[in-house]
Amino acid sequence: MIPPIPRHPLSLLLVLLPLAICTGCLSGDEAGQPSGGDASLNLIAVLTDYGTAGSEAGALEGAIYAANQNARISTITHLVRPFDVAEGSYLLSVAAREYPAGTVFVAGVDPGVGTRRRAIVLESKDKKLFVGPDNGIFTGIMDSLGLSRAFQISNRSLMRSTGVSSTFHGRDIYGPVAAHLAGGVPPELVGPQISDPVRLNLTSAFRDSSGLHGSVVHIDTFGNLMTNIPGPLLQEAGFYAGEVLAITVGDSTNLVTLATTYGDVQAGSWVAMTSSEDMLQISINKGSAAEAAAADVGDSVWVSRLSTG
Amino acid sequence: MIPPIPRHPLSLLLVLLPLAICTGCLSGDEAGQPSGGDASLNLIAVLTDYGTAGSEAGALEGAIYAANQNARISTITHLVRPFDVAEGSYLLSVAAREYPAGTVFVAGVDPGVGTRRRAIVLESKDKKLFVGPDNGIFTGIMDSLGLSRAFQISNRSLMRSTGVSSTFHGRDIYGPVAAHLAGGVPPELVGPQISDPVRLNLTSAFRDSSGLHGSVVHIDTFGNLMTNIPGPLLQEAGFYAGEVLAITVGDSTNLVTLATTYGDVQAGSWVAMTSSEDMLQISINKGSAAEAAAADVGDSVWVSRLSTG
Amino acid sequence: MIPPIPRHPLSLLLVLLPLAICTGCLSGDEAGQPSGGDASLNLIAVLTDYGTAGSEAGALEGAIYAANQNARISTITHLVRPFDVAEGSYLLSVAAREYPAGTVFVAGVDPGVGTRRRAIVLESKDKKLFVGPDNGIFTGIMDSLGLSRAFQISNRSLMRSTGVSSTFHGRDIYGPVAAHLAGGVPPELVGPQISDPVRLNLTSAFRDSSGLHGSVVHIDTFGNLMTNIPGPLLQEAGFYAGEVLAITVGDSTNLVTLATTYGDVQAGSWVAMTSSEDMLQISINKGSAAEAAAADVGDSVWVSRLSTG
Repeated sequence: MIPPIPRHPLSLLLVLLPLAICTGCLSGDEAGQPSGGDASLNLIAVLTDYGTAGSEAGALEGAIYAANQNARISTITHLVRPFDVAEGSYLLSVAAREYPAGTVFVAGVDPGVGTRRRAIVLESKDKKLFVGPDNGIFTGIMDSLGLSRAFQISNRSLMRSTGVSSTFHGRDIYGPVAAHLAGGVPPELVGPQISDPVRLNLTSAFRDSSGLHGSVVHIDTFGNLMTNIPGPLLQEAGFYAGEVLAITVGDSTNLVTLATTYGDVQAGSWVAMTSSEDMLQISINKGSAAEAAAADVGDSVWVSRLSTG
Repeated sequence: MIPPIPRHPLSLLLVLLPLAICTGCLSGDEAGQPSGGDASLNLIAVLTDYGTAGSEAGALEGAIYAANQNARISTITHLVRPFDVAEGSYLLSVAAREYPAGTVFVAGVDPGVGTRRRAIVLESKDKKLFVGPDNGIFTGIMDSLGLSRAFQISNRSLMRSTGVSSTFHGRDIYGPVAAHLAGGVPPELVGPQISDPVRLNLTSAFRDSSGLHGSVVHIDTFGNLMTNIPGPLLQEAGFYAGEVLAITVGDSTNLVTLATTYGDVQAGSWVAMTSSEDMLQISINKGSAAEAAAADVGDSVWVSRLSTG
Repeated sequence: MIPPIPRHPLSLLLVLLPLAICTGCLSGDEAGQPSGGDASLNLIAVLTDYGTAGSEAGALEGAIYAANQNARISTITHLVRPFDVAEGSYLLSVAAREYPAGTVFVAGVDPGVGTRRRAIVLESKDKKLFVGPDNGIFTGIMDSLGLSRAFQISNRSLMRSTGVSSTFHGRDIYGPVAAHLAGGVPPELVGPQISDPVRLNLTSAFRDSSGLHGSVVHIDTFGNLMTNIPGPLLQEAGFYAGEVLAITVGDSTNLVTLATTYGDVQAGSWVAMTSSEDMLQISINKGSAAEAAAADVGDSVWVSRLSTG
């Protein structure tokens, strides 16, 4: 049975104070990480497709502070492409690994809001918590950080106290639940444990006799093409630093130097490297590879050795 | 007579410390909310049209921290359409209701900066404070949260200590004043009480024999059309869930299903519902109603029953 | 020899606690400002060209929190034009002056990332710290705030604990180093002192018999043209409030009234004034000067008196 959550913020504080103190004492290497959000950290990082020109980001932050006045909020982005769960999954996994254990994440990319899809909380193996819709947005997290436990959110006392709408669950459910978790409420209290969070069916990169095959998963603000081809696959294929490769993105094929960083080639030249996430990245030094190749997310990528015939 | 404000931050702290402690003791249901900003919350939420690609948002935050080193800042948006006081008023009212009592808001949409229009502080009935120009930007707040008291800002000791410009009152007046209020300075200290804050002349939605009439007040990042037609008016008109209505936005008329959430209709279909703010919202599931109807803010909206002739 | 930095966050806290307490006691006028970051402030302000639609801003914030769980982060902008070190230098200097002493700034505009250019920490005369690449991005800071000391970053124990990439030094070096500085680590610990940080070769404005000559250094979100012509030069030239001047921006010449604020002229009229940074600013009241003059950053500006022939 789920113990009742006190509705008054001060009472909640009194109930959780010993937990918070205890969390402080035990955190760190000698005691293992605390389970759930870390009340001494009290940090919530948000990623949504709400945009930055409306009231939504503010309403979400307000709802978080209303549920947990000591919360600290970090914005990853509010500019995931509308409804693009796959992009949200990718960006969340790349950013989330950097935050300290105990951070609670809110993922608000939710095209099915108000329908029967579940609202869930995941705990990763490195002791971070993730709150959002069960639509696959946590696929990247499960793949990169590993899934420890998952729960379906059903505890109304952790949701927005003034009502839950059918169209804005970030404000009404994910934000307030994350706020309580960050304040020290253990994830067991959100609802029943589940074992089958939804995963996106993402294609993997592979190597065959013609080279490496993958796709563009993200284009950054500079026009760099981020692929799903892991850095180690480049070594397996025998490609070496300084080698000039033929790389086809969509229907644009270019000669690209494999290097370590942008400045290893002249400005305006194509360069490939392992990215800061250890994946193949295709770039033009001080230019935009996306523009030059007319590339878009989802385009196929083929990396091959120049024929030496 | 206004008591002098100590200029040294540490002295200010000493003066305000008992107040802060007292605020902490009394906050909550049993003592009523404290008057003015809540020093234990120390939260400032900002909404401006300054944009996000310049130095203005940073200069505003810097000025807040310079006046109150313990301030916490939440960004609602910096992308109100330039000079659009009506949009700012709408977005502020939608976001502000979510924040906890004691939050202090800065509204920096100020086309008349440097002219004779007053700088003001409003206190809402739910004990939030609003700082900005007296140009109507708080109309939505007064309508939705209710006005408790209003003050004209005249106390120079609460403004930017290194000078007040004619073109950037967000940085020089609103930000620093909000910072002091959030730190526990009572609003009475900003200047004389006033009774006539400016209100925008907004048209209201209405119902007649032909249906409901209103206008588009905001378009969100997904292209959803937010109107000024209150949800209860739909019930008064006898419209029912599942009914297909004729909705004219500007000069585009479409058949729209009245439902609860986006997913109640197929992807690509028109759907209307009461929004998360309990107003009529017109949408296309997983599409952009704004694009399909070539709609803009200010467009007229007419909702009518299909003739059953 | 550089003393070792404890790797465990709690140990670091224990080591720094006396410093933090001491900092609190001594801060303020009677004791002078503390050297380096102010642990009681613990504030990091970031300015980058990473964009806001990717994972980079979040990864940077995560890396800061991972290195210093009590850090507070303020965003100046992530939308410096890609690779535009000069614009970054300008925006940083305009924003940084507003923040309190002890603030630590991260400047992530770094087209030469991964090459031999140094990573540096500067201390300004008003006791702020700046962390970023040695590519001239701190030119504006050195000119406006004055350079006190400079250090080259070499201390690996202050960098990202899980590795340093060749392409994302904001996340891997500048962010974590700034986090440690904000937490109270003195800048001497980042590496050896240097005396020759890179400066951009910026052209200065000047006055000759034909008037004032300068250039556009920034265009804000309203289309206001910010120039490098200092306000005092207008007085030296004998221009007076209310005078109508001929101002040529690029190849567009317009009659512009010299005034104090936008509202001193009618909506749609050209107006010039000293900006909130005390530089010449060229505007159209409630309009966009940039659009009307088809102006861009770098355009020449010539201000001249109307011939009275």
